[in-house]
Amino acid sequence: MTRFELSPRLAADSKPVATLGLCEMRLIDDSRWPWLLLVPQRPDITEIFELTPLDQTMLTFETTLAASALKKATGCTKINVGALGNQVRQLHVHVIARFEGDPGWPGPVWGHGVRKPYEDDAQKALIEAVVGAL
Amino acid sequence: MTRFELSPRLAADSKPVATLGLCEMRLIDDSRWPWLLLVPQRPDITEIFELTPLDQTMLTFETTLAASALKKATGCTKINVGALGNQVRQLHVHVIARFEGDPGWPGPVWGHGVRKPYEDDAQKALIEAVVGAL
Repeated sequence: MTRFELSPRLAADSKPVATLGLCEMRLIDDSRWPWLLLVPQRPDITEIFELTPLDQTMLTFETTLAASALKKATGCTKINVGALGNQVRQLHVHVIARFEGDPGWPGPVWGHGVRKPYEDDAQKALIEAVVGAL
Repeated sequence: MTRFELSPRLAADSKPVATLGLCEMRLIDDSRWPWLLLVPQRPDITEIFELTPLDQTMLTFETTLAASALKKATGCTKINVGALGNQVRQLHVHVIARFEGDPGWPGPVWGHGVRKPYEDDAQKALIEAVVGAL
């Protein structure tokens, strides 16, 4: 069995927020939407149904935790949750805060326009707000 | 407490496949992608974190069930799972079979192009294949 290693592409696109029981929680470096990533620390997993039942339950619990914290930290209109993996096959779950009228609303965020990296201070403040709401 | 009623928009866009313990499973009437919908039969729920912990676990179980069945029935490249709800607020989970080179690949399916309804026979055959794989 190989060891878990975060995909280099996911690592490049995001900053660490917290380490949970199952997942690494990260913040996507795109200031257009508050956007968390949950990556189960298990090697060679592409689909949710490849996780053990216990890990699936953990992933649900941690997704709910991330979604509630993001809702609390941002006061958003709607949380979007998705596991696509068409480009990066390592299993990862997106948890995104959406606001009426935000870029691409009411469509999905994936593939929409051009990434807008955070200013350092804004990124730090959002990470602190999310961690505080966990 | 109000009773659960399927959103008229979700009902119009899809056909019934099966009734599971928590969810109605339906097939979106768009032949571009094999696309299931899971709708928890609970009233007034918009976000996954509003479900009870037991219902969350059930939803995970049924999402996994739908994803495995769809993978088995279609031999797709990748399953996409998403709960967005920006347009229809009743909680619903999308489980979609994606193939390399399908319409919109590797982007998301939501909001992509124009819906292409099934021929009756093709729709019936897919529903039977999914039910057989459950």
